[in-house]
Amino acid sequence: MTSFADTRFSNRRRALASAIAAQRLDAILVTHLTHVRYLSNFSGSNAALLVNKDLTARICTDGRYTTQIATEVPDIEALIERNSAVALLGTVQGPRRVGFEADYLSVTQLEKLQAAAPEDVQLVPVSGVIEKLRLVKDNLSQQRLRDVAALATTALDDLLTAGELAVGRREIDVAADLEYRMRKLGAERPSFDTIVASGPNSAKPHHGASDRVITAGDLVTIDFGAHDRGFNSDMTRTFVMGHADEFAAEIYQVVLEAQLAGVAAATPGTQLVDVDKACRDIIEAAGYGEYFVHSTGHGLGLDVHEAPYAAQTGTGVLAAGMTLTIEPGIYVPGRGGVRIEDSLLITDGAPEIITIMSKELTIV
Amino acid sequence: MTSFADTRFSNRRRALASAIAAQRLDAILVTHLTHVRYLSNFSGSNAALLVNKDLTARICTDGRYTTQIATEVPDIEALIERNSAVALLGTVQGPRRVGFEADYLSVTQLEKLQAAAPEDVQLVPVSGVIEKLRLVKDNLSQQRLRDVAALATTALDDLLTAGELAVGRREIDVAADLEYRMRKLGAERPSFDTIVASGPNSAKPHHGASDRVITAGDLVTIDFGAHDRGFNSDMTRTFVMGHADEFAAEIYQVVLEAQLAGVAAATPGTQLVDVDKACRDIIEAAGYGEYFVHSTGHGLGLDVHEAPYAAQTGTGVLAAGMTLTIEPGIYVPGRGGVRIEDSLLITDGAPEIITIMSKELTIV
Repeated sequence: MTSFADTRFSNRRRALASAIAAQRLDAILVTHLTHVRYLSNFSGSNAALLVNKDLTARICTDGRYTTQIATEVPDIEALIERNSAVALLGTVQGPRRVGFEADYLSVTQLEKLQAAAPEDVQLVPVSGVIEKLRLVKDNLSQQRLRDVAALATTALDDLLTAGELAVGRREIDVAADLEYRMRKLGAERPSFDTIVASGPNSAKPHHGASDRVITAGDLVTIDFGAHDRGFNSDMTRTFVMGHADEFAAEIYQVVLEAQLAGVAAATPGTQLVDVDKACRDIIEAAGYGEYFVHSTGHGLGLDVHEAPYAAQTGTGVLAAGMTLTIEPGIYVPGRGGVRIEDSLLITDGAPEIITIMSKELTIV
Repeated sequence: MTSFADTRFSNRRRALASAIAAQRLDAILVTHLTHVRYLSNFSGSNAALLVNKDLTARICTDGRYTTQIATEVPDIEALIERNSAVALLGTVQGPRRVGFEADYLSVTQLEKLQAAAPEDVQLVPVSGVIEKLRLVKDNLSQQRLRDVAALATTALDDLLTAGELAVGRREIDVAADLEYRMRKLGAERPSFDTIVASGPNSAKPHHGASDRVITAGDLVTIDFGAHDRGFNSDMTRTFVMGHADEFAAEIYQVVLEAQLAGVAAATPGTQLVDVDKACRDIIEAAGYGEYFVHSTGHGLGLDVHEAPYAAQTGTGVLAAGMTLTIEPGIYVPGRGGVRIEDSLLITDGAPEIITIMSKELTIV
């Protein structure tokens, strides 16, 4: 719940001013719900927000949310109309250029807006503006991300302590237990479908959780997260059941070294491609380069995957206040795989790891 | 998993022929993932499908899904490319009109497609075509819907038997237990955020599950569903904790009568507005009309909410093979509410209820 003293949202709207000026807009119509939430605090499932160049704003939702919007958004005038975006556009007066979110609005939705727009309103595509604002997290967002990461980490710790990761159990049983523990700790839901990939399944980076029974000697990769109050967590640990054979121990060590190198590289001013390279070089040097089949990491916040991206291609530089996962992996088809992932907050110095849990090879 | 004998998907693609002809198209480019799955069986998170007017087809996904697409889609030639829609458009030869899904494709995505399209390819907006095909469920889809509804119903039954709906527990505890039970029974995830609305919260139709502690005398509305193999379930029951006061017993009875009337009205050939009216008339006659603040029901299948819609406005007629929820409710702010919801398969005669569980007033 926000309060009088909470100026985060008006500050964020204020940060739109330069984008509005750069495209000579009179207003931006925000329709992507994550962005409405980011700019206003409103968490309902139907809403649009109009921010004018003088930074006054209007928000619209439907009758289900009359009470909720008054509580969550005390500082913006609210309209109650089912068709939020069209209703807000109808309030625009005089000849104006209104930006719309071209990356999210469907072709049909744009057509409807154009049909409903006052005659002298011109709709102008806007792209990437709010994503750019979201790159650097403010203090409260950082705290929420720490909190939800700590919740998820606790759930995994408790699962291990309770012996719920065990030979003879199915992958889906372990996933169900982990999700249940997150829920009981207060998570609204998992931030994505929980991965529990055992034995040969550990060699599939995008395996979900199947009814395969976990067996002695298996590598088991658990990749999961919690969602709470809009924010997401994301972490991965790989365990060994009973004993680690030479192969498992070797690839584990390589991935761990790569992961530590990636974390060490995640400092402000560093090119994102170089963070990826820090991980990838170690895996390649160990002869497993062809088995690291994905990129090193991504930002997380209101989305589980958001900018910045640490990959082999692309541009961009890390800055304090950004988030980044570091999640190298080795996947050898038919033999098994390992992935180790932390979520980081980029600081002025060394990054802050918010998924605090041992990364040493753990035999369960 | 599909097999040689599984002609569901080619049959569905064949049903596109008349829409292709009606808009004089040479092909349809399907990009909405639910529709790709409906027409091909592919369940990955990146895909596009091109269906030509001669009903040949090509599908595209990225390298993560090479194995999965070969297994799930044995009957369509697959390309492996990260940018699926653009890649498929690049395979189009000669002057052609290609339909795109205007209701789902973003303005930016369309721009990218237009930039990538061969010069003599014209992109034509297509709307509502595949949704119309999805209205009537084939036999296997009907069976999947029965299965996932039965799974969810069993979970709620077991929850009650285990005494997990109880005075002194928090709403979120009950929600977590119910989700856990669905997961253990094989659901991939809840089909939507579970609602456990107790006491005053029961008067809020869109309440989620809070940390409120359930108290003797509460009405408790549980609205929930399971997701499995693409299909969703949806049902609601309202319980009374310990004892029902006169108000609770009265509104329960009114909602139950309305729900039974709605179910009885759900026969082929019936206007959807008349199904809504069958429920609403009873609630209005009892003097609670102003407290039934939503529509009567919706179809469900690959989406939790899909056509048809039983509401006070709109057009459309029920037909055998459609699905429909019947979910009237009464919500009196400050006092409490009741909602009772079943999911139905429309048949040639009386509808088949697939959420089989008592609707008599149950005191827990």
